[in-house]
Order: sequence, then C-alpha cells, then structure tokens
Amino acid sequence: MGEAIRTQIDVEVRYFETDQMGLVHHANYLVWFELARTDLCARSGYHYADIERIGYRLLNIELQVRYRKPAHYGETVSVTCWIEDLASRAIRFAYEVRRDDELLVTGSTQHLWVEATSNHPCRTPKELRQPFRELAGLEG
Amino acid sequence: MGEAIRTQIDVEVRYFETDQMGLVHHANYLVWFELARTDLCARSGYHYADIERIGYRLLNIELQVRYRKPAHYGETVSVTCWIEDLASRAIRFAYEVRRDDELLVTGSTQHLWVEATSNHPCRTPKELRQPFRELAGLEG
Amino acid sequence: MGEAIRTQIDVEVRYFETDQMGLVHHANYLVWFELARTDLCARSGYHYADIERIGYRLLNIELQVRYRKPAHYGETVSVTCWIEDLASRAIRFAYEVRRDDELLVTGSTQHLWVEATSNHPCRTPKELRQPFRELAGLEG
Amino acid sequence: MGEAIRTQIDVEVRYFETDQMGLVHHANYLVWFELARTDLCARSGYHYADIERIGYRLLNIELQVRYRKPAHYGETVSVTCWIEDLASRAIRFAYEVRRDDELLVTGSTQHLWVEATSNHPCRTPKELRQPFRELAGLEG
Repeated sequence: MGEAIRTQIDVEVRYFETDQMGLVHHANYLVWFELARTDLCARSGYHYADIERIGYRLLNIELQVRYRKPAHYGETVSVTCWIEDLASRAIRFAYEVRRDDELLVTGSTQHLWVEATSNHPCRTPKELRQPFRELAGLEG
Repeated sequence: MGEAIRTQIDVEVRYFETDQMGLVHHANYLVWFELARTDLCARSGYHYADIERIGYRLLNIELQVRYRKPAHYGETVSVTCWIEDLASRAIRFAYEVRRDDELLVTGSTQHLWVEATSNHPCRTPKELRQPFRELAGLEG
Repeated sequence: MGEAIRTQIDVEVRYFETDQMGLVHHANYLVWFELARTDLCARSGYHYADIERIGYRLLNIELQVRYRKPAHYGETVSVTCWIEDLASRAIRFAYEVRRDDELLVTGSTQHLWVEATSNHPCRTPKELRQPFRELAGLEG
Repeated sequence: MGEAIRTQIDVEVRYFETDQMGLVHHANYLVWFELARTDLCARSGYHYADIERIGYRLLNIELQVRYRKPAHYGETVSVTCWIEDLASRAIRFAYEVRRDDELLVTGSTQHLWVEATSNHPCRTPKELRQPFRELAGLEG
C-alpha cells in the first residue's frame, strides 16, 4: 500500500475575495479547496466535468476548516489536496493552504457518490474504482 | 398604454459582499439586480424558477452599470427593477439602487428568451406574452 | 442561568448561489451563517459594523458544517443562530438552516476577539461583555 | 505613439462560478476582468496592492459587458486586458474573454483615481503617470 497522491495548485488571491477586514473572506477557501479537488480528480484520468457527463457527482456532506493565518490580496498561495479516506460510497478529501512554507488553513470535506439525475447515493462508479484507489494510494 | 410595473426590494449588505476598500464590491450589484428581477418576474404570476420548469430561460447578453456612490456593510439598500423595453424575443430590464433617497447605482441588462434544454433563442413563450406585456405597461 | 438567545432570519435563495448541480453551492451557507450572526450580534445593542468602528473584530478560526439536504432557487429558508459557547477571548456560534420544518444544514464557527488595527487577539471588549453574556443566556 | 500593452491571463473556470443554467454566471466575468486588470497594472512596476499601499485606488464608476457565448466548468479561458483611454484623472480598461480563438465576452470599465483614505477623486499619482502612459502606449 502506497501513499495518497497529493496535488498542489497555485491560487492568486483575487481582489473580489477580500473583505473589509483586508483579508481573504473565509468562505473563499472552500472555493480554493474545490479547485484543488478538481485538479486531483483529473489525475484519475477523468476530469470532474467528465464524471458528471457519465452521470455521477460527489455531493459534499460535511466540512471542517481551521483558519490559522489569513491570506491577502497581492499574494499567491498553494493549495494541496489528497484523499484521506476512501470508502465504497464516500470519499474524504483533505486540504492545506500555504503561503511559501507557512501553513495558513487546513480543512477536510466528506462527499458521497450520487447519481447525477436523481442525486441518490450510489457506490463508486465502476470505471472510477481503480483510478480512485490509485489516487488514495491503495494500489499500484 | 400604462406605465411599466416597478418592483422594489430591500437588500441588507452582507459582510461577504465588502472588499478591502471597505465598500460593496462592484460585482455584487449584479446579484442584487438579479434578485430584483426575480421579484419582478414573479409578478407575472410565474416565478422565474417556474419559467425554467416550463422550459425557458432569459439569457443575459448585455449589461451596463453606473456606480455613483458605494454601499457599505451595516446598510440596507433598496433595488428597483422594471422592464424598459419589451420585444418579441428580448427584454431589457432597468435597475436603480438607493440608500434612502440617495441614488447609488443604476444599470440595465438585455436578455434573450432561450429554450432551457438547448439554450437556443426563441420567441417569448406563449403563456408569458400577456403577463410580460402587463409588466411592461403595454396593456391593461 | 437562562437560555441562549436564538435569532432567526429568512433568506431567499439567489440564482447566483446555485451551481450546475441545480442546488445552492455549499460555500454560500457560510455567507448565510454570517448574515444570521450579524443579526444576533445586533441584539447586543451593537451592530457588528459598530463593533468594528469601536476597534474590534471577531476573527473566524474554525468552522464545521453538515449538509443534510440542499436548498434550491425559488425557496426561502430560515437560518437560526445562537451562541453555543462564550469564553473570555472566544465565541462559538451555532447555526441551523431550515426549509419550513425540514433541517437542511447545521454548522458552527469559532471566533477570537481581535483588535481591528492589528488583528491581535484580545479579551472581550469591556462594553460588550455584559451584552454578549446576555446573548449567551448567562445572565439576566 | 505606440500601441497599448495587452496582457493575457488564463483562467480556469471554477465549479463555484457555474449556476443552474450549467454556465458560468454572468457576474463572475467581472471578477475575471479584475484579475486581468491586476496583471496589467503589475506591468507598470507597481502591483495594485502596492498602489493601495502608497495611498491610491482606482474606483470603478462604469461598466459595460457583452455576453456572446458562455464559458463552462472544465474549460480554461483567456482574458485580455488593455487601457482603452487614459485621462489625467480616469482610466478606461477594455477586456476580451476567449476560449481558444472564440470570442466569448467583451467589456470595458471606467475608473477614477481616488485617495485611499478618503475615496476622494484625485489626479493620477505622480509616480504612476509615466508607467501608466507607457501601458497605454502613449510613450516610449
């Protein structure tokens, strides 16, 4: 059993993302998490847009975030994402936001596989089982 | 021929909507316009969610905004919306944002009727012709 | 010792808040939490905008959300907020989002008092101690 | 007199930016314009964050957008930005959003120079006159 694959993307802070504290508003980190999750999923060979096209979605059912230090306009941060836990019907992703070596924000999100037409929970789509096990470091 | 029906809604400024200038970020006014447009459409007897359910959408194809004075967190503003121009395939809505009597922002948006499944332009849906003519002050 | 004061606000779902799943995107619930928190704070006699004006802020350092059922465009939901825990330097707020009697989303946020100019942690501002103890149901 | 300098950035569509039409919501293009404007300003030798630090801001007073074709999740678009008109107290920026060679959205924004502390209009800050004239293709 190997290690989970970690993706890392750079995100430039947008002026729109600041609030009148002069910091990035805390809701925007979820959007950055999602951007990193998109990048990680793409490494399965299926872009998340393709996963939707074949009829499946990852519905977010739980979320934790710890804000240690804020990001600011004018900065570019890195967002790391990996699969922390993989079950037959659910995935937990973990996230770290850094400015250089400084850890700013950590978080995790729990998702259920659902059928796109009905939003009903389902098992991991057949074609994605092996690729996601590899992302999670469970094979190969 | 009468006057166009004007709707007016109150919008409480959200902290999230501020930026580090300490003002409401200019993109958020479009979201407020949309909220007022929803309210105006509902007066046709069809909530915009219902319009989508019967298979039509109003695709935004043009936008103008003039920002005179900014809104701030802690304030509640009013947003007025009315139909400025009604054609067989298009609608122009106009907007005014006020804090008490003070005019803050004005704008207009041009929309095409499209079929929801294809996003192809179409004529005003049959069932909406009369109600929207009334909203526009062209009948009754 | 009494019960914590619960505030409840109505929030109309905005089209902008939906995503291509046809549901409210999960990040928007944080913005609704904030709107309810603003309303609760105002019951202390100090609008949060006033709290900033006298030089203090509530910095968000932690967040949990559980998404049970989604909200949709065309719906108005209620958001309830109350103080779950009050310490000398920190406050934990709790939230519930409902559509009629149906519980959609629950969450909590942990905040530190900071000085607005420096963002340095501080004790609860003197003038706010009594009002916030009352909000938390610890007096009166 | 030369040509205005054109900056071009790539923007990956975020899931958060879609709405239930399955397209990028029209308000997000303004955020992308801003991102490209940040990039163009940085070519003056002053990042916009630095311009604020030395006490000035570009207040948005007018906006036009034409939406021709929509962008979707899963796509990366390019946003081009340049100075269309430079006056002693104001700047007009123009924007084009493309997916490969296909023109999706065009727009322009008019801004006034203001002093950051008061938001009062002022002339172009001395240190920025020459750099912005060069951006506008008026010198060099």
